[in-house]
Amino acid sequence: MTGITAYVNGRFLPLGEAAVGIEDRGYQFGDGIYEVVRVYGGTPFKMREHLDRLRRSARAIELDLPDLDRLTEDALELLKRNGLRECSLYIQVTRGVCPRKHTVPRGIAPTVVMTAREVAGFPAEYRSRGVKLITVPDDRWARCYIKTTNLLPNVLARSKAERAGAYEAVFVRDGFVMECSSSNLFIVESGALVTPPLTNYILAGVTRATVIQLAEELGIEVREEAVSLERLYRSDEVFVTGTVTEIVPAVDIDGTTVGTGKPGPVFSLLYRGYTGLTAGAGDA
Amino acid sequence: MTGITAYVNGRFLPLGEAAVGIEDRGYQFGDGIYEVVRVYGGTPFKMREHLDRLRRSARAIELDLPDLDRLTEDALELLKRNGLRECSLYIQVTRGVCPRKHTVPRGIAPTVVMTAREVAGFPAEYRSRGVKLITVPDDRWARCYIKTTNLLPNVLARSKAERAGAYEAVFVRDGFVMECSSSNLFIVESGALVTPPLTNYILAGVTRATVIQLAEELGIEVREEAVSLERLYRSDEVFVTGTVTEIVPAVDIDGTTVGTGKPGPVFSLLYRGYTGLTAGAGDA
Repeated sequence: MTGITAYVNGRFLPLGEAAVGIEDRGYQFGDGIYEVVRVYGGTPFKMREHLDRLRRSARAIELDLPDLDRLTEDALELLKRNGLRECSLYIQVTRGVCPRKHTVPRGIAPTVVMTAREVAGFPAEYRSRGVKLITVPDDRWARCYIKTTNLLPNVLARSKAERAGAYEAVFVRDGFVMECSSSNLFIVESGALVTPPLTNYILAGVTRATVIQLAEELGIEVREEAVSLERLYRSDEVFVTGTVTEIVPAVDIDGTTVGTGKPGPVFSLLYRGYTGLTAGAGDA
Repeated sequence: MTGITAYVNGRFLPLGEAAVGIEDRGYQFGDGIYEVVRVYGGTPFKMREHLDRLRRSARAIELDLPDLDRLTEDALELLKRNGLRECSLYIQVTRGVCPRKHTVPRGIAPTVVMTAREVAGFPAEYRSRGVKLITVPDDRWARCYIKTTNLLPNVLARSKAERAGAYEAVFVRDGFVMECSSSNLFIVESGALVTPPLTNYILAGVTRATVIQLAEELGIEVREEAVSLERLYRSDEVFVTGTVTEIVPAVDIDGTTVGTGKPGPVFSLLYRGYTGLTAGAGDA
């Protein structure tokens, strides 16, 4: 922990001293939103897209955001102070501090917190051999499109996956797959890329959008369609996408082998393309 | 705010200095549980029931609780230091501080926070004239029986009620009423008390249980049954129960007048009984 600098409401301070009031609504109600941005070569990747989503989340819960240009400047300063060039940047904005009451208070200042962390060594074999997924009932609320800190269902699902020796948990609602606890989901069928459409039960992943665009540029057919659990099991390839973990191929779902049991050609093509994009990010 | 003493992990300190680390999982994931206990004459009412529920919540999310005897002693000390005899006591336990990751970390100490506040002047006319309720779609997750700090759906519903000039929002799922944003719901039909049974979509309210027991002692028939929205509108009486607000009669739901449009006789009988119980609490 030593030496890590964090950010709270305009101040840079040692992580151990970075704190929020116990009556911060983020702490008492999960009344807050967040973003995780991947930094490559010192440059936050797709920062504009992340801030756009932060704005959408804020609007959805009627939260007043601070000035995002200032926030971006402060984020860059945070990276500099931590001497980080390859890392993840965590940005959280909560409604602020107020004596506890259920209704949304007016006229209080939001709390802004940021941390930056080296991306923990992601096991190379996850991508070379592929990972295992489990499916779990989607017991989350109906507004999964908002990136809020009400993440307990995700925490419980992910922990269940971990106990089962799996990398991620796929939320299944009424027999159809939605997304994972912190990733979006893609399948490949006869060379076409298929992913569930952006309903209220799915977060509009920034990596999801990047992968769709990349696929289209590579001439891969992309379809946004409801995907049943049976269809997931029968897919030729399955992979999940996330800002920090990028693209991770899955070769086993609930004990059922996916395709050949090895990461497939569409994954490989897209991952190569994605690596090309992020490698160029630092030069921008 | 001046003069309020709060409690964080065994320490008593001014509210303005009471803080938790920004990587507390309660702040980043809503990975925590809580209780609100009403204090009458210096004595926490139904403390054992609240702590039992805290234990059930902890078990449900696999959270290690601190020693609750010590917690209770500290709670009494907090009341004393704040010179409060008629107040609400807020107890929150979160998973603790840990570098951000979705899976449940092992071996970290939970964070315990307590505050005590005078019960804000509850308008007398709420009980003498009755309040207005609105109904909202129940968009919460499927584990509403756990008292967690993932409360954003409740916050948004309650704010919608406030904007409509209503006291509370009733969650309706698939045409059936569940509970309100921070209260349980009762209806009266031909003299019988009816309330939805304790499914996964309902929190086992301590006041709910007390009111049911009280009704049985008073010879009122009590039935735990699914209540459709149509049935709610047609009820003779409707009231909601909560630890801090006790029992509050509703006379208008979505613009539909309940019964005679005035608080009814079953409410009055139960509220008188409840007041008797709490008046005796301080003497225990």
